[in-house]
Amino acid sequence: MGQSEKSTHRERHFTASDTIRDIVIGMSDGLTVPFALAAGLSGTVSSTNIVVVAGLAEIAAGSIAMGLGGYLAARTDREHYENELERERREILEVPEREKEEVAEVLRGWGLQEANVESAVKEISSDQNRWVAFMMKHELGLEEPEPKRARNSSLTIGLSYIVGGLIPLIPYMLIHRATAALLVSIVATLIALFIFGYVKGKFTGSRPFKSAVQTTLVGGVAAGIAFLVAKIIS
Amino acid sequence: MGQSEKSTHRERHFTASDTIRDIVIGMSDGLTVPFALAAGLSGTVSSTNIVVVAGLAEIAAGSIAMGLGGYLAARTDREHYENELERERREILEVPEREKEEVAEVLRGWGLQEANVESAVKEISSDQNRWVAFMMKHELGLEEPEPKRARNSSLTIGLSYIVGGLIPLIPYMLIHRATAALLVSIVATLIALFIFGYVKGKFTGSRPFKSAVQTTLVGGVAAGIAFLVAKIIS
Repeated sequence: MGQSEKSTHRERHFTASDTIRDIVIGMSDGLTVPFALAAGLSGTVSSTNIVVVAGLAEIAAGSIAMGLGGYLAARTDREHYENELERERREILEVPEREKEEVAEVLRGWGLQEANVESAVKEISSDQNRWVAFMMKHELGLEEPEPKRARNSSLTIGLSYIVGGLIPLIPYMLIHRATAALLVSIVATLIALFIFGYVKGKFTGSRPFKSAVQTTLVGGVAAGIAFLVAKIIS
Repeated sequence: MGQSEKSTHRERHFTASDTIRDIVIGMSDGLTVPFALAAGLSGTVSSTNIVVVAGLAEIAAGSIAMGLGGYLAARTDREHYENELERERREILEVPEREKEEVAEVLRGWGLQEANVESAVKEISSDQNRWVAFMMKHELGLEEPEPKRARNSSLTIGLSYIVGGLIPLIPYMLIHRATAALLVSIVATLIALFIFGYVKGKFTGSRPFKSAVQTTLVGGVAAGIAFLVAKIIS
């Protein structure tokens, strides 16, 4: 790793703000689906009891699907990377000429002239680790996954989903009449979605205000459709 | 685009099987959360009516969150890519020497010797499009997002989430007693999760049997915890 100034730069940037980004992503996702489910159910029941039970069951299910599912997927990615690394290591020992030709192909694709290609291939392949890293990145398009980051990220996203999901549910816990709880939940959640969309925009590099509007829109549309679906079929 | 043999190859591979992969991903996600929610609720009610309403509201909410959310995120990525492309185009005209030095940095990182670096930089920067493509990929680590793919992918995943979510719900629609419906739903959904996990493994390059076990495990654990949470609080 750290082959170039820029990739070291990106890695550093990663660890700094990624926990915050995971929190915001988990939270704004958690705000959306439990919010929409609770809104949908509240149109069909008079007491909020069943809304709270369904909401908490959804939060449990969603956080595990996101957290455990994400963790297992990351572990699979890691294994896939390591298998491919193993294979590349074997290939540069067993069929070095073919592998050198593959490096040359990549370089030609960037516009290098033939004389230059030959010496560049020689230089890249003079260090086995660098050669394998080059093949992994440019032949297979694989970046090394960070092992700890996957676990931490899944845990953070899962927990944030729980916290985010509780925001639309708390009004239903405190207010017994479903219609009143729904109104408070809508106001509280749309505000929260807007704030988290804004912060998400800041941390994912898109325009914060636009991200805020989009996040609020997705949550609002999801809740509206869920409300209609529940109304129609019940 | 199509700078190297391999990147063209990967693009072709993409369009061939990606629709199937999207279907499988949306479906196995749709199987997990509505299944877990329905299982959770069925422990607290005697009639299946409310389970069906909650399940369908969840499917509506989840498919919109996944589909619309994914579509807007892809559009934001596209805009981000185009803004960066615009900026790189400006930079190679305004500060060509600094941009050439950045290309040189990347090449040095791969182990190219100084003499070679100089001529390689000259060759890469002789074609403006290639130069910009090189900077986008190696300085910023950005690949060009396919515009149509984002929209189609979001639509496919959203619709597959609906189809997947209906599998655990159908038993609750046909059987009125919650405990009986729960049993049929568990058997049907675990079988479906196993099959879709297997197919998902085939299409994402991991071992199919392992993927089948993991997908079934995530669904089963999510349903179990949702069941416990609903039992405890109701």
